[in-house]
Amino acid sequence: MPKNITKVVLSDDEIPRQWYNLAADLPTPMQPPLGPDGNPISPDMLAPVFPMNLIEQEVSSQRWIDIPEEILEILYRWRPSPLYRAKALEKAIGTPARIYYKNEGVSPAGSHKPNTAVAQAWYNKQFGIKRICTETGAGQWGSALAFSCALLGLECKVFMVRISFDQKPFRKLMMQTWGANCVASPSTETNAGRNILKESPDTPGSLGIAISEAIEAAVSDTSGKSRYSLGSVLNHVLLHQTIIGLEAKKQLEVFGEKKVDVVIGCAGGGSNFAGLAFPFVADKINGANIDIIPVEPASCPTLTKGPFAYDFGDVASTTPLLPMHTLGHAFIPEPIHAGGLRYHGMAPLVSQAVVEGLLSPRSYRQNDCYEAALLFARTEGFIPAPETSHAIKCAIDEAVKAKEEGKEKVIIFNWSGHGLMDLVGYDKYMSGQLVDHELSDADMQKSLKAIANLPKAKAVKSGRW
Amino acid sequence: MPKNITKVVLSDDEIPRQWYNLAADLPTPMQPPLGPDGNPISPDMLAPVFPMNLIEQEVSSQRWIDIPEEILEILYRWRPSPLYRAKALEKAIGTPARIYYKNEGVSPAGSHKPNTAVAQAWYNKQFGIKRICTETGAGQWGSALAFSCALLGLECKVFMVRISFDQKPFRKLMMQTWGANCVASPSTETNAGRNILKESPDTPGSLGIAISEAIEAAVSDTSGKSRYSLGSVLNHVLLHQTIIGLEAKKQLEVFGEKKVDVVIGCAGGGSNFAGLAFPFVADKINGANIDIIPVEPASCPTLTKGPFAYDFGDVASTTPLLPMHTLGHAFIPEPIHAGGLRYHGMAPLVSQAVVEGLLSPRSYRQNDCYEAALLFARTEGFIPAPETSHAIKCAIDEAVKAKEEGKEKVIIFNWSGHGLMDLVGYDKYMSGQLVDHELSDADMQKSLKAIANLPKAKAVKSGRW
Repeated sequence: MPKNITKVVLSDDEIPRQWYNLAADLPTPMQPPLGPDGNPISPDMLAPVFPMNLIEQEVSSQRWIDIPEEILEILYRWRPSPLYRAKALEKAIGTPARIYYKNEGVSPAGSHKPNTAVAQAWYNKQFGIKRICTETGAGQWGSALAFSCALLGLECKVFMVRISFDQKPFRKLMMQTWGANCVASPSTETNAGRNILKESPDTPGSLGIAISEAIEAAVSDTSGKSRYSLGSVLNHVLLHQTIIGLEAKKQLEVFGEKKVDVVIGCAGGGSNFAGLAFPFVADKINGANIDIIPVEPASCPTLTKGPFAYDFGDVASTTPLLPMHTLGHAFIPEPIHAGGLRYHGMAPLVSQAVVEGLLSPRSYRQNDCYEAALLFARTEGFIPAPETSHAIKCAIDEAVKAKEEGKEKVIIFNWSGHGLMDLVGYDKYMSGQLVDHELSDADMQKSLKAIANLPKAKAVKSGRW
Repeated sequence: MPKNITKVVLSDDEIPRQWYNLAADLPTPMQPPLGPDGNPISPDMLAPVFPMNLIEQEVSSQRWIDIPEEILEILYRWRPSPLYRAKALEKAIGTPARIYYKNEGVSPAGSHKPNTAVAQAWYNKQFGIKRICTETGAGQWGSALAFSCALLGLECKVFMVRISFDQKPFRKLMMQTWGANCVASPSTETNAGRNILKESPDTPGSLGIAISEAIEAAVSDTSGKSRYSLGSVLNHVLLHQTIIGLEAKKQLEVFGEKKVDVVIGCAGGGSNFAGLAFPFVADKINGANIDIIPVEPASCPTLTKGPFAYDFGDVASTTPLLPMHTLGHAFIPEPIHAGGLRYHGMAPLVSQAVVEGLLSPRSYRQNDCYEAALLFARTEGFIPAPETSHAIKCAIDEAVKAKEEGKEKVIIFNWSGHGLMDLVGYDKYMSGQLVDHELSDADMQKSLKAIANLPKAKAVKSGRW
C-alpha cells in the first residue's frame, strides 16, 4: 500500500550524484551529426562553438557521468525538487489511478531549464570561458542561463526574438535583474542581424535568426573566451536533465510505489520530457512494462507526424545535420502560447527512442490543454506553464482511462514549470478567444520539401520491442 | 559547529500542528478594539463580518491553538517551506555571520499570504459560509484568497483597487485562473462604490474604498452566507502565520544552530514579520538575548515614527478602532513599489510588542532596498518581492555590522515572497528612475490630526525590558 501523503521532499544529501546517459543503453547506436558535405562532424569541429568538456559529454557513451560538487552546490537551491501526489486532481476525476508530478517550477527561473543552464555555465567556466552567448524566444531559456551566469560570475549575452522582447518584457527584466545583456534580435551587433535588418527593418525576428546571431557572437570573439549555449535538443542538455527522473524514482520509493505504469512529459526540443523519462526508459529497455509518452501540440506534431530524417537544427541551416524527427527546418509553427513547444525538430536521443518503439508520442490541441491546466490550478493549486499543460492533459486522459478500465494505475508526469509569466494565454482561453491549430498533412508535406535533398537518416530499429 | 549545508527541508509529518498565540505571553494584556462610541467591541458585534470561529481566535488568549488536519492537507502543497543558509550572500559580504532565510515564495500564490488565506477559508466553510469577500491592492492578498477558495470550493469576490486592476493585470489573471470574481473598485456593485463613482468617475480607487466595498458586499448578502476576510493586521491572521517561525526553529536545529542573534521581517500590516518573529519573541520574553527587527519603508514609517494610538483600520473609518502604531487613517503613502508595506497602521500585536520594548523597528529607503535585492538575486538566485527587499537590506546591514565587530552572529529573515510579478520596480531601479521617499515630520503631524479626537490608547509597558 502506498502512503497517504501529499509530497516527498529529499534532503540535499539525497540528491543523485550522477547523470544518466541513455545513449549507453539504446539498442542501436546513435547516428552521428553530419556536416553540410554529408560527412560526420568530428568533436573538434565543434570546438569554436562549445567548450571541449561539453563536447565530450555530447559524444559520450558512458552510462553514468558524475555531477561535479560545485554544480550540486547551486542545484541545492531548489533540488531535489518535490514530488507530489495529485490527490485533489485524482478526486476531481474520480480515478483509481495515483497521479504523481515532479514540480520543476520551484527553481529560481521557474522551470526545469536551470538544471542544464547551471551545468553548462559551470563547464564553460572550467574551460576558461568568460562569456556565454545564447538565443531565447519567450525568455524561459535565456532567463535560466542569465541566472546561472550570475551565480558563477560569467558574462551572459542573450539574443531575444524581437517580438517577444517588445511584447513580453518580463522575462527580459528577469534576465537583466540577473545582470545579463539582453538585446532584441535581429540586432545591429552581428553581420547576421545587420543583413536582415537591411532587408526587413520591421521584422519581428525568429528563433532561427537569433540562433545565427548568438553563434556568430560566440565564434567571432577574437579573445577565444566566448562560447555558445543551447537549452534543449543536444545530448548533453538531455543528460543534465536526467536528475529529474533519478530523483523521482527515489521519491516514488518513499511514497511506497513499486511500479510505474505511465510516464509523461511535454516535448518541444525534448529536454524536460527526457529529464523525467530517460531513467524509466532504461527500465523499459530492461523489460519493464511502462507507457512512456512525450506530448506535443497538434500544431507542431514533430514526433506524431514528422518523419525521422537528417535536418538542420535552425531555420538558417547553420548547425550540423542531426538525425531526428522533424517537420523541416523552415517550418514555422502557429503562434500557440506554449512557445517552448514550437520547434520543428526533436532531440536526436528522443527521436531514436521513438524509432526504437520505446516511446508512444501523442499530440493535443491547445484549448484542451488549457482546460486541463485550469482543472489542475483549481484542484492542486499551482498554475502551470502552457507547455506543462500538455503533460497535464495527457495525465488526466490516462487517469480517465484507468477509471474506465477500473485499474489502479500509477501515472507520473513532469510539471515542467509555472505559468506566472504566461497568464495572457489563460486570459484568452477563459474569454473564449483562443484559436485551435492542427497541422494539416498538406502543409507538412510542403514544409518537408526543404529537407528532400539532405542526406537520409537510417530509421534503424533493433526490433526487440 | 553548524552543518555546511545549503537548505533544510522538512517532511510533511514534521509540520507544526499548533499555531502560537503571542497574546498569551505579552506581559501587558492587549487593549480591546473600540466602537465609534469609544466602548469596547464585543465578539458578537463582529459576527456579521467574520464567522464566529475566527472571532474566537481573534480574542483568544490560549497560547497554542491546534491546526485542523484539513488545513494541513492544503498547506502540505508548499509547507514546511525550505529554510536556506545564504552562503553565497555571506561570501559576497565577507561576513563571519551566518545568514538564514525562510522561503515563503514557494507557495502557489508566491508569498506567505496563503498561510492565513487557507485557514480563513477553511474556518468560513466550517461555519457554513459559501462566499468570501475581500479587497486587494496589487493583488497579493486577493490571489492568495482566490487560490484558497478554489481548493475549498468557496466563492471568492475580490474588490481590486482600480489603478492596479488596470495597470497590473497579472495578479488579476491569477485570481481569475483560480475562479475568483475580481472587479475594479470602486465598482457599481455596492452603495459605497456607486457613491464614489458618482462624485469622481475617474478615481483610481484606494484600499480604503475597496475595504468599504468588500465589507458591504459581505454584510449585505441577505442569505447570511457571505463574510469578509482581511489579509493582515488582525490577531487571528498573525496567528496563522506563526507556522513560519515554528518551522524555522526546527530547521535551525537541523542546521546545528543553538542560538539566534537577529530575527528580521518586513512589516506592512505586520503578518509576515509576526509569522517568523513571534515564536522568537516568546524566547525573548523568557530571557533570550535576541534583536527582533520589523523593517518598514522610510516613506511609511508606522513603527519608527508613528505614535501608539487608537485608530481606524481603514481610510473610510468603518472598522473598529484598534490600538496600534499609526500615521493616521487618512495617510496616503507615496507610491513605492513595495505595495504591501503601504499601510498607515500596524497590527495591534506587533504594536504592543514594540511598546513593550520587545522589538527594534527600523526603516529604509527603496533605492537601498533594491540594491540589496539585486545583490541577493545575483548571489542566492531567487528574485525577491519589493517588500521582501526591505528585510534583505536589514539582514545585509546586520551581517556587515557582524563583520565590523568580528562576531559570528546568526541572522534569520523572512523571505516573504518572490518578485516575478513585480519586475517593473527592478527596471526602474536599474535604469536610475526610482525616486526615494522619506516621510517628513511635518507631513506626519498633518496626517495625525485625523486621530486627534479619537479615544486614547494607553502605552502600557511592563518595564521588564
